Amino acid sequence: MSADLYRALFAPSSVALVGASDVRGKPTARPLEFLRQHGWNGDVYPVNPKRETVLGEHAWSALAELPAVPDHALILTPPDAAVDAVRQCAELGVTVATVVADGFLPGTPDGDRRRRELREILDGSSLRLLGPSSLGVATVASGFACTGNAAFAEEPLPSGDVFIASQSGSVLGALLSRGVEMGIGFAGMVSVGNEFDISLGEVCLAAVDDPAVSSFALFLENLSHTGDLAAFARAAAERGKPVVAYKLGRSDDGARLSVSHTGALAGDDAVADAFLRAHGIARVVTFDALLEGQLLARRVPIARAPAERRVAVVSTTGGGGAMAVDCLAHAGLRVAAPEPVTVARLAELGVETGHGALIDLTLAGATYDTIKAALDVLLSAPEFDAVVAVPGSSARFTPDVSVKPIIDSADASTPLAVFVVPSAPQALQLLRGSGVPAFRTAESLADAMTAVFDRAPVRPETAVPPVGADGITLDEDASYAVLDSVGLASPPRVVLAADDLPAELPVPAPAVVKVLSDQLAHKSDVGGVVLGVADGTQMRTAVADIRTSVATARPDLGVDRVIVQQMVRGVAEVLIGLRRDPDAGPIVVLAAGGVLAEVYRDRSVRMAPVDREQACEMIDEVRSLSVAKGFRGAPRGDLEALAAAIVAVSRLAVSADPVVVEAEANPVLVLRDGEGVLAVDAVVTVAETGP
Amino acid sequence: MSADLYRALFAPSSVALVGASDVRGKPTARPLEFLRQHGWNGDVYPVNPKRETVLGEHAWSALAELPAVPDHALILTPPDAAVDAVRQCAELGVTVATVVADGFLPGTPDGDRRRRELREILDGSSLRLLGPSSLGVATVASGFACTGNAAFAEEPLPSGDVFIASQSGSVLGALLSRGVEMGIGFAGMVSVGNEFDISLGEVCLAAVDDPAVSSFALFLENLSHTGDLAAFARAAAERGKPVVAYKLGRSDDGARLSVSHTGALAGDDAVADAFLRAHGIARVVTFDALLEGQLLARRVPIARAPAERRVAVVSTTGGGGAMAVDCLAHAGLRVAAPEPVTVARLAELGVETGHGALIDLTLAGATYDTIKAALDVLLSAPEFDAVVAVPGSSARFTPDVSVKPIIDSADASTPLAVFVVPSAPQALQLLRGSGVPAFRTAESLADAMTAVFDRAPVRPETAVPPVGADGITLDEDASYAVLDSVGLASPPRVVLAADDLPAELPVPAPAVVKVLSDQLAHKSDVGGVVLGVADGTQMRTAVADIRTSVATARPDLGVDRVIVQQMVRGVAEVLIGLRRDPDAGPIVVLAAGGVLAEVYRDRSVRMAPVDREQACEMIDEVRSLSVAKGFRGAPRGDLEALAAAIVAVSRLAVSADPVVVEAEANPVLVLRDGEGVLAVDAVVTVAETGP
Repeated sequence: MSADLYRALFAPSSVALVGASDVRGKPTARPLEFLRQHGWNGDVYPVNPKRETVLGEHAWSALAELPAVPDHALILTPPDAAVDAVRQCAELGVTVATVVADGFLPGTPDGDRRRRELREILDGSSLRLLGPSSLGVATVASGFACTGNAAFAEEPLPSGDVFIASQSGSVLGALLSRGVEMGIGFAGMVSVGNEFDISLGEVCLAAVDDPAVSSFALFLENLSHTGDLAAFARAAAERGKPVVAYKLGRSDDGARLSVSHTGALAGDDAVADAFLRAHGIARVVTFDALLEGQLLARRVPIARAPAERRVAVVSTTGGGGAMAVDCLAHAGLRVAAPEPVTVARLAELGVETGHGALIDLTLAGATYDTIKAALDVLLSAPEFDAVVAVPGSSARFTPDVSVKPIIDSADASTPLAVFVVPSAPQALQLLRGSGVPAFRTAESLADAMTAVFDRAPVRPETAVPPVGADGITLDEDASYAVLDSVGLASPPRVVLAADDLPAELPVPAPAVVKVLSDQLAHKSDVGGVVLGVADGTQMRTAVADIRTSVATARPDLGVDRVIVQQMVRGVAEVLIGLRRDPDAGPIVVLAAGGVLAEVYRDRSVRMAPVDREQACEMIDEVRSLSVAKGFRGAPRGDLEALAAAIVAVSRLAVSADPVVVEAEANPVLVLRDGEGVLAVDAVVTVAETGP
Repeated sequence: MSADLYRALFAPSSVALVGASDVRGKPTARPLEFLRQHGWNGDVYPVNPKRETVLGEHAWSALAELPAVPDHALILTPPDAAVDAVRQCAELGVTVATVVADGFLPGTPDGDRRRRELREILDGSSLRLLGPSSLGVATVASGFACTGNAAFAEEPLPSGDVFIASQSGSVLGALLSRGVEMGIGFAGMVSVGNEFDISLGEVCLAAVDDPAVSSFALFLENLSHTGDLAAFARAAAERGKPVVAYKLGRSDDGARLSVSHTGALAGDDAVADAFLRAHGIARVVTFDALLEGQLLARRVPIARAPAERRVAVVSTTGGGGAMAVDCLAHAGLRVAAPEPVTVARLAELGVETGHGALIDLTLAGATYDTIKAALDVLLSAPEFDAVVAVPGSSARFTPDVSVKPIIDSADASTPLAVFVVPSAPQALQLLRGSGVPAFRTAESLADAMTAVFDRAPVRPETAVPPVGADGITLDEDASYAVLDSVGLASPPRVVLAADDLPAELPVPAPAVVKVLSDQLAHKSDVGGVVLGVADGTQMRTAVADIRTSVATARPDLGVDRVIVQQMVRGVAEVLIGLRRDPDAGPIVVLAAGGVLAEVYRDRSVRMAPVDREQACEMIDEVRSLSVAKGFRGAPRGDLEALAAAIVAVSRLAVSADPVVVEAEANPVLVLRDGEGVLAVDAVVTVAETGP
């Protein structure tokens, strides 16, 4: 997005309101009302062919009649008239048009037709389009409330440095009013609607260089235009402007689980999670944290998460402090007690420790000096990654006194966050006004803190070969060969013609005999697998049995070849898969073996490729693998080799020869520590090679 | 608690303030300040031996000097002086004394001494004691703010019909101010402190018959005095006065897991959960829901939860409605689309359905008539157990208009709850003022709704034999006999003298041979188990091997007897245990077999005994049992027999002969449907019988 386009969107010198109504309070009248109410000083051109004036102002009969070509046209008409207006904008040379109307979704005859018409218009001009189904844009400081969202009647609008982009228009209004309540203000706000032309990522990317913007809040209904989103995220990370996102869709997670297909197994929401995390975006799950988490995100540098995030909780209210400890620990943070050196420094202040992890200042006296000194000690103690202060009822009655020591301590390299236990809106606003992250609930604090610590360093753009959805599915033997080429081995195997078997078992016993076919996704289901084969005689029996079973279950298939493979025993069993998500791109999945992945949704998803450190994080996230860590005296598994195998499979995402559409090694046996891992079944789909 | 005592606590005619300070704003001066500020009209007697006046009022030098015996003495002095004051109260015939001081916890010499002194005083008099470490009590309507909690400077205090009891004093203040913000008011408020004499349950039980009280909010740090709590819960349920509780301790859950001991496996917090649920108490996990959930709890009758709780979500704001759907579904409720009849009735109103589960009124026009009519349709539709309305920005600007249709529809048998998407405190207060449950966040709504639907019908008091912690651990054979006596069978077995083995296997092959001893908790760990024994020869070898292994690992034990048992195969394997929690009483645990219970914390806990329906709920909660429900074509397990086995083990809680201290069948094999379940290992501890 050019600087001119960004300016036309958020700071035009003139805007046309096409279809502006004369009836006060109607959504189509509101943009004019709001622009006047908030004192925007650009030129406003109401366009209404039926009236000479709207709301007491001169109205033009058509875009072509305007005294000047507007930078921005907000089109408030129904969808077919909107297409006409967009066409006129294109002809006149308007920079950007925002279309409010619904009715442009694909899949209906009208929607499809209108999309074709818009596409033609845009392809033939320099016009850019926001929406359709956009509720508009706003620049709060200038009063450019170019929207029909009723919430913009707010007086005054909350000006600040957070940029809001939302796929839902109505939520923009909720965020506006909640910002007012919280004392959090906004720079630009945009409802991107259907993202037919301008995407959420594109508009945010342009806002990254806006000096009025310090951080971003995204409300996402789905992941789309992920390339733009990724480019934005990289730019935001470079400029140190953090991004916090709330995304709908958690409840679908896992509903569509299926072990047979890596993609379905991962679930859309887990893929979205992986995408956001990989791009340094803090995903919160409470609506409050989307705004309350902004200041915290600015204070916590994006860095690969340490294994434990150690948090000190210091309180002047026992019960409230305990609530904070409970919520933070429940969310997976480690509420840590101070080290002896810190204990000694606190003791000098009269602060007793030893009440578990909570540092309670009540007995030492909650004076300015004690609180300030205790916070300074904790903020300079190397054993904490963050400090949480929990003030009590005084925050309601003497907010300035109560939060002063916190504000005065907050300028430390360790982030300091506050959970205010009573209802104390003034204290919250004072803290936030001073840049101190402050939270109304312990739940929102725990959510925001987890989300900002979970962010991964933004990955550089990876060259991924263009891959279609279709491809050629390789048989088990050929699939092993692909995995082997990147370093994931399988046990010794021999492929034999079913009609021409040797006398002796060609691999060390015991062996497994399996039908070999690229047409059979589930060999066991058709009797195509015999385990525990001890010698040549048993092998021949096994092959005969397999031929009989498969002939019954799948009369269309002939069993020409079998694979005879040495059986091995692991200490744990997992699935490693590579899939290409149509939105997010290549992902790698590590899942518990067998039915556990389904029953317990026990899996970890990352954008592919991953490095060793990310692979280790994935291993930590799959709970069933705790048995391979020497759990209850069990033998340790070779998790170092497992990490290498995950890296190897994930790197198939960038392989040019072959180009892999999808790969799944399932199960992969984790052998004892030092003995490696082995894939004992595999399906790889490669792209069809050109002529 | 007598009516006199309840009156002395919350509505005394006179109160003495022992240790009242003359320094305005000090915690010890505040009770007098607050009683005057809020216009309480009883007699107040400040007692301060060092001053003739405090805060301009006459002060008495000692309790004995007062012109009348006060009903209630609030003792504000340090702990040793407090003990003296309590003694004087006892001598004078004061009804109740509230002690604020800390310093009475057991385990320290001073604490133990003071507890002994208090015990002696109370045992020798009619005086009752609240605290120590109580922050006091309040009756809001009368202005009886008998507390030093700074929050009671609130003007005016929020009067209402919620009764608050808290184990944390400081949280009382936070709830007070949050109630003000929410428009939720209180009848009585009490900080119970250490519950040395008067317990939280006892004071709440007395409040159940207070006509000013409609429901209860409990803030719990731990479960204690559970007998009183249970009696209160039963009385509250009888009177239809719901109880909502927030309990600390979720983060400890599972940290102390251990499969070897049922009690540790359950985890304290899971036991607390089971206790609260069994007593019809709605446990919320967000602080907001403790108050916001009050009105919802009044509207949802306590009933055993149906398998699905079907919720309709109707919105005038797409994004906000989607947030509600996502949060409710994520919390485990079923957001359901309307049935065809309802769809047709909505269509008559111009309301289109078919956007997934969300019913969006935006296109139909969010007028009073449309909203009211749509709500009436949904509230009378039999397919919904609750309806959620989600108003948008209009709730902020025209709160009365926006919430009127909701208020006018709410008087239906189906509960109606509201999530207000923008910041709209007035709309929230209007709704709540009309008795409509209204929520500031979708997260709090989902939390409260789950909690109130999760409540079980209150169980009648069960006669549980008095059981000590110690007992006699039975060997495997005797343990089977106990389980068998209540109906949990085990596979055919024979106990043999290790020195006198028969020639043939005495049970059908294959068999397992196990050392039989009441001294060996983990037979396998010492080589005391041999599986897959096919005949008499193998049996003799097995016994010899076991003798060698056990002699090496445990030279103190001789292997005199072995158990030879037929091996069986199940489709799933679980643990069923009975334990007696020192606080909550007998609990029954159903857990996934093997390491799964630990790795995935996959278990369900209930108070024992349970009935078949509760046992079925437990089966539904153990995720690994989904494999026994025909998951992915696997054979179905006999879950009806499993339910019967859970009931059987749970009924050991009330068995008088033998009196069972603890029982654990692990594993229990679930056979194919119709074939039953079998315990294949068991340990039962019975109480020592008297002489």
